[in-house]
Amino acid sequence: MLIVKKFGGTSVANKERIFHVAKRCIKDYREGHDVIVVLSAMGKYTDELVDMARDVNPRPPKREMDMLFTIGEQMSVALMAMAMNALGVSAISLNAFQVAMHTTSSYGNARIKRIDSDRIRHELDQRKIVLITGFQGINKYDDYTTLGRGGSDTTAVALAAALHADECQIYTDVDGIYTADPRVVKKARKLSEITYDEMLDLATLGAGVLHNRSVEMAKKYGVQLVVRSSLTEEEGTIVKEDAKMERMLVSGVAADKNTARISVVGLIDKPGTAFALFDILAKANINVDMILQSVGRNQTKDISFTVSNDSAADALNVIEKNKKRLNPEHVECERNVAKVSVVGAGMMSNPGVAAKMFECLFNSNINIKMISTSEIRVTVLIDEKDTEKAMNAAHDAFGLED
Amino acid sequence: MLIVKKFGGTSVANKERIFHVAKRCIKDYREGHDVIVVLSAMGKYTDELVDMARDVNPRPPKREMDMLFTIGEQMSVALMAMAMNALGVSAISLNAFQVAMHTTSSYGNARIKRIDSDRIRHELDQRKIVLITGFQGINKYDDYTTLGRGGSDTTAVALAAALHADECQIYTDVDGIYTADPRVVKKARKLSEITYDEMLDLATLGAGVLHNRSVEMAKKYGVQLVVRSSLTEEEGTIVKEDAKMERMLVSGVAADKNTARISVVGLIDKPGTAFALFDILAKANINVDMILQSVGRNQTKDISFTVSNDSAADALNVIEKNKKRLNPEHVECERNVAKVSVVGAGMMSNPGVAAKMFECLFNSNINIKMISTSEIRVTVLIDEKDTEKAMNAAHDAFGLED
Repeated sequence: MLIVKKFGGTSVANKERIFHVAKRCIKDYREGHDVIVVLSAMGKYTDELVDMARDVNPRPPKREMDMLFTIGEQMSVALMAMAMNALGVSAISLNAFQVAMHTTSSYGNARIKRIDSDRIRHELDQRKIVLITGFQGINKYDDYTTLGRGGSDTTAVALAAALHADECQIYTDVDGIYTADPRVVKKARKLSEITYDEMLDLATLGAGVLHNRSVEMAKKYGVQLVVRSSLTEEEGTIVKEDAKMERMLVSGVAADKNTARISVVGLIDKPGTAFALFDILAKANINVDMILQSVGRNQTKDISFTVSNDSAADALNVIEKNKKRLNPEHVECERNVAKVSVVGAGMMSNPGVAAKMFECLFNSNINIKMISTSEIRVTVLIDEKDTEKAMNAAHDAFGLED
Repeated sequence: MLIVKKFGGTSVANKERIFHVAKRCIKDYREGHDVIVVLSAMGKYTDELVDMARDVNPRPPKREMDMLFTIGEQMSVALMAMAMNALGVSAISLNAFQVAMHTTSSYGNARIKRIDSDRIRHELDQRKIVLITGFQGINKYDDYTTLGRGGSDTTAVALAAALHADECQIYTDVDGIYTADPRVVKKARKLSEITYDEMLDLATLGAGVLHNRSVEMAKKYGVQLVVRSSLTEEEGTIVKEDAKMERMLVSGVAADKNTARISVVGLIDKPGTAFALFDILAKANINVDMILQSVGRNQTKDISFTVSNDSAADALNVIEKNKKRLNPEHVECERNVAKVSVVGAGMMSNPGVAAKMFECLFNSNINIKMISTSEIRVTVLIDEKDTEKAMNAAHDAFGLED
């Protein structure tokens, strides 16, 4: 088998952890597999580099910031190669230039375009463990770029796709994907399999184990992902297209407290009002999540929407600035709210899921403020204080503890 | 003018020094020059990387060591680009991959083969200050290499040669080349010019401002070097082929205390004895400096030679191991010795220099233990305690204080 393994910064934060990861990779190698390892920068090293840069220039050019960032992963892979060598195994570290990790040109947030796999195949053929810098790429100007948040996961998936790897293993500090956050829902159960779409919805909704971009890429190229713990030998969760859903309607419950509801009340009810509002928000680069429009009094309508907590102030600001264009009666903002969702590919052919969700929340005496659904998801906005109660109620109602 | 400027690790050790260097380079840039800046790793960062590596693997693979080392200079150039940007000047950092700094394949001690100057010229044409990582290169396997001691000086000279720069300025913590070490010889005087060959002899003999390899390369490609202080605005010393020697026989006095004399006494006087001895030393990778053979008693001969202090134990060791082959009466080692030399292109056509040197030492009551000469140099081995006295005597005798 050809296996791509990705370890994050905490997994390589010090000598002991580096050797722990080295031994883990060597185990697969000794079993005869070809092993590619993608590493992030050690511990909080990327943050240290940010501080170093800001000290010299509070607004450093992004191109030079990426030039500085990339040394973090290069340090990780070089030290890992030394550790594996100390354990008697031949390993080689490669950076973005050496694996020709071509990306789009935008610094700080580039996307992978293609990888020349020749060098990697050559080293694998020499029976070496190949260690590759995550998070970084090269653009058409022959400059370093970085991939933004979750970048190393994306690197791993891109390599797995380019080399047709049998599996891409993402090592994290949790041992897989759960039906709900185990810290909140005591009865939460680890899933053995989940589909890409479910994973995407869970990630978006705050389950946050894998970054969306890596899951999207895995889906596009059919890369089988495995989310595993770097601390235990547990099996983990497989993310793939045709995951067995164990005949369940719902595979998980997720919550996101980083949300605020803004209500724009008393807009004149004529075509183009909604467009005007969301055009203003889009131009201010504010991501809007749930949207609800309701009929107001006296030929007016109310529009409510949710944004992340850190965008709420910006949103209120641009609405205030465009008061004349929008002309609302007044604007409200509610911050003590949370989104709770149930996600499951099974609900596509089962219309009763939403009803069941509302029923269980009613039985728990939880008020629903907004509702949003997709083919495989039902999301409700509720009071933040009810989050845990709602998650447990939904988890029970859909029999996820099983 | 196209100017290549090289700054060492102490010159970029912290934020204040980085800005000091940045301003210095910007001054030339604002005067209309094209400016290329070669930087070393910050302060003692390379030492820190060595410690980091040794902690993981006491004998790290050289290939991975170079992979780790190269991040040091990349950090320097990225931060310098940010600093220049903060000062309102457009600058760009480039690493060995980006300037295609091709070297031989040997890790840790590679030699530069060629540089593709296209990228550099392109950036200069955009009126950017171009910041280039010193000390590092890329070999035919597309791997990072490093150039060994004095590597960044060599990078600067190689760039100056490849781009036909008008001048290559090496910034150090001294403000030029002196007729003798000013800490030892109070009357020492800074030279305005010196030839490559004199510089080479001075470097070899412990004046150590420039590394030999960079001077050799400058000589080969006719690159005009200037040694200047990074702390003051002083003129510095120009190193070039046709330096005016100001009608002087001798341009400098140098001393080297890192030396030991080994005497192999009572060897049988037959052909091949000297060969046997130095063959043994060469195979043990021991550099021999001065050699003196004298007639001994009873058909025997004595051979004395000098090595650096740290090689003395090894040398004694291999001689002991090859006792049967050499069969000496006994072996002596003297560590409290020093080499003192006078160097000057002028002495080529003036036979009296050696005699004058011996005379002045005799007048100072200093005993000469060994003598070695080249076309432009006279070296004597003396007691270490007499070093300062001998240097001052020679400096006076040749009228260097002028």
